Amino acid sequence: MRDRVYLDWNATTPLRPEARAAMAAAFDVSGNPSSVHSEGRAARKLIEDARGAVAAAVGAEPRNVVFTSGGTEANALALTPGLRRGGRGPAQRLIVSAIEHPSVLAGGRFAPGAIEIAPVLPSGVIDLESLAAALASGPPALVSVMLANNETGAIQPVPQVAALVHEAGGILHVDAVQAFLKIPINIKALGADVLTVSAHKIGGPKGIGAVVAADGLEGLHAQVRGGGQEQGRRAGTENVAGIAGFGAAVRAAAGSMDVDAARMKALQARLESGLRDHRDTVIFSDTAPRLPNTTLVSALGLKAETAVIGFDLEGIAVSSGSACSSGKVQPSHVLQAMKADPGLLLGAIRLSLGWDSTEADIDRCLEAWRKLSGVLREAHAIGLERF
Amino acid sequence: MRDRVYLDWNATTPLRPEARAAMAAAFDVSGNPSSVHSEGRAARKLIEDARGAVAAAVGAEPRNVVFTSGGTEANALALTPGLRRGGRGPAQRLIVSAIEHPSVLAGGRFAPGAIEIAPVLPSGVIDLESLAAALASGPPALVSVMLANNETGAIQPVPQVAALVHEAGGILHVDAVQAFLKIPINIKALGADVLTVSAHKIGGPKGIGAVVAADGLEGLHAQVRGGGQEQGRRAGTENVAGIAGFGAAVRAAAGSMDVDAARMKALQARLESGLRDHRDTVIFSDTAPRLPNTTLVSALGLKAETAVIGFDLEGIAVSSGSACSSGKVQPSHVLQAMKADPGLLLGAIRLSLGWDSTEADIDRCLEAWRKLSGVLREAHAIGLERF
Repeated sequence: MRDRVYLDWNATTPLRPEARAAMAAAFDVSGNPSSVHSEGRAARKLIEDARGAVAAAVGAEPRNVVFTSGGTEANALALTPGLRRGGRGPAQRLIVSAIEHPSVLAGGRFAPGAIEIAPVLPSGVIDLESLAAALASGPPALVSVMLANNETGAIQPVPQVAALVHEAGGILHVDAVQAFLKIPINIKALGADVLTVSAHKIGGPKGIGAVVAADGLEGLHAQVRGGGQEQGRRAGTENVAGIAGFGAAVRAAAGSMDVDAARMKALQARLESGLRDHRDTVIFSDTAPRLPNTTLVSALGLKAETAVIGFDLEGIAVSSGSACSSGKVQPSHVLQAMKADPGLLLGAIRLSLGWDSTEADIDRCLEAWRKLSGVLREAHAIGLERF
Repeated sequence: MRDRVYLDWNATTPLRPEARAAMAAAFDVSGNPSSVHSEGRAARKLIEDARGAVAAAVGAEPRNVVFTSGGTEANALALTPGLRRGGRGPAQRLIVSAIEHPSVLAGGRFAPGAIEIAPVLPSGVIDLESLAAALASGPPALVSVMLANNETGAIQPVPQVAALVHEAGGILHVDAVQAFLKIPINIKALGADVLTVSAHKIGGPKGIGAVVAADGLEGLHAQVRGGGQEQGRRAGTENVAGIAGFGAAVRAAAGSMDVDAARMKALQARLESGLRDHRDTVIFSDTAPRLPNTTLVSALGLKAETAVIGFDLEGIAVSSGSACSSGKVQPSHVLQAMKADPGLLLGAIRLSLGWDSTEADIDRCLEAWRKLSGVLREAHAIGLERF
C-alpha cells in the first residue's frame, strides 16, 4: 500500500519524469536567452522548443505563445483593455463568469467599475441567456469564461459562448488552466481569441504558464515591462528550466491524454458510485459535462476544513474547494454562484485524480469518507468543532 | 584547457550545485503550498526556509520578503505609487537614475508623466546635486537608484542617496540585483526602504526574484492579483522549486562571498592590466568604486556586435553591454548617460567574472582581445562590417 494517497491533482500535480529530465538538462545551460553567444543561443533554443510544444497542444502558432510565471499572471496579462481581433473590439469592458478563478475575478487591468459578473445555472454552467443580455447592454466587451471549472470540473459551452461574444463584437478569453490536456483543446474550434494555460496542472513545474493568442489578436501589451523578451509582451529573463519542463510535460501529457482520460473516467465512476452509497451525499455539477478527474462532493452538516485535516491524518491529500487563496475559510464562490444548498456549502471536498491514481487510492478514499463523514457530522451535530 | 570560457556572469550565472540539489529535492514535493495537507505544508516549508535565507542575506525580516518571477517583476512591484514609511511619502512621483535597468526605467505603475530621470556623472555615479534639486522641486518622490550598475559595475553612493531622499520626505528603492552577494548588503545600513534581488545572478535559477521591504513600508499593493499568496502582495502558485533553489544559492553565495570577491578582484586586476596594454583602450567607470567582477571596456573604432561574435568563435562568451533587451543593436543608455566618447559607444564589451573564473580564462580572453580588437578595428577602418 502507498504511504500517502494524493487526490489533489487540481491544486498541483507531481512533476512528470520527462519534465524533470528536461529541467535537469536545462540546468546545464548557463546562458541568458537574450545573449547572442553560444550559451545564450542554447538557452534560446530550449525556450523555442517548448513554445512549439505548447502551441501544438492547442492548435496555435508558436509566435502567439507568451510564457508567464503561471496561470495567474497569464490571466492578468490576457485581461487587457483594448484587445481587438478581426474587426471586433476594442474591448472596453470585461464580463467574467461568476465561477472564474480568483485571478480572473480580479479583472486584470480593467478598472473595477468596468467589470461585470455573468451568472451561472445551478448546474455550474454559464447562463448563456444572461450572457447574451449582458453583451447587448453596452460597448464591445472582453468576456472571460473558463473551459472547465477548477472546483466542480464542469466543462463550459465555450463554442456557444464564442458565438455569442463574436456576434456582439466582443473578444473571448478562455482560462483553460484546469482543462488543458485533460480534454482536447483547439483554440480555433473553441473560438477563443486568447487562452491561458499553466504547467503545474499537467505535470510541469510550478511557476510557469502561458498566454496563447489566436492569430491576429492585437493590443496584448506587456504588464511586466522592461526588456524586450517574449516579443515585447512580457519582460524579464525567462525561466528557462521551467519553460523547458513545461514543454516536456506538454509533450508527455499530450501523448497519453486519451489513455489517461479513459483511466481517470473509470476511476471517477468508481469513486462517485461509492460516494453515492452514503445518504445526503451530493456531487456538484453532476448534470453537466465534467472533466474526467474532478469530483466535488459534500454531505449535509459536514465541515470541510475539519474533514481535510481528517483525510490528511488518514494519509489522504484532498482539498476543500480551491487551494488558491491560502488560509481563507469561507464558502466557495463557485458553489455560491450555483446557489448551492447552504447546508452543503461549507462541507464541499474536492477529490481530483491524476494519471498516477489507482483503484486502491479510490477505495482507500471511500473508506476514509465513510469513516470521516459519519464521525464529523455527528460531532458537528452535537456542537463540537473537532472530534 | 576548458572547451568554453564564460565571461558573462552579469547576464546570468551557472546554477550552483547547492541550488540544483535543493531544486531536485523540491521536485519530490508535489503539494501546492496553499494546501493544508501534509504535501502542501512540505511545500510551504521550502518557501519559508528560502524566505529566511533571502532576508538574512540583506539584514531584513522574513515577513518582508515577497518572491516574484525575477528581478524585472520585482522592480515592477517595487515601483508602486503611494509607498510610505516612517512619516515619509506617500510617493507621488518617481525619480530614477539615468543608468537604471530597463525594468526600472519602464517606471512600474507610475504614469509616464510622473517619471523623472536623474543624471549621472561621467564616472557613471549618480549626480547627487542634481538629485537633491529634483527632490526639492516637487511632492514626495519614490527614488530608484541601483546599488551597482549591471554594465559598468559602478557602485552607487546609496547611503548618501538615502539621506537626501529621506530628508526630502521621499522613499528609496534600491535595485540590488547586480550587487547582491558580490558586496555586503544590509537594508538598514543602505537606508533603503525597499530593495530588489534576483536568483540567476548569484547561482540560483532563472525566473525567481524578490522584493525586500524595510520594516514599516506600507502601500506595496500586488501587481499580479488573484489568490492571497505572499501575504496578498503577489498572487499565483509559488515557484516552489525555484524559490528553494534561490534560498540554497543565497546560503552558498553568502558563505563564500568574501573569498569569491577577493579572487574575482585579483582576476579583475589581471584582466584590466592586460587590457590597458593596448592603446586606445578605455575601461568605463574606472574612477568609481566598482564590483569586483565587472569590466566594461571599449576601443576606438571597435564594433561590439561583431566583437561578441568573434569572441564566441574563439570560445569565449562575453556581452555587448546589457543582454536584457534581446536583439536590440543600439548604444548603451548607460554610456550615453555617462556622456561617453561617441567613438567608444558602439564598441563596449562587458567582461564579467564569477566564482568559477580562473587566471587561464583571463589570459585566454586577453589573447582574444588582442587578436580581435586589432583585426576588427582595421576591418572597420576600411569600411568592412565583418572580417
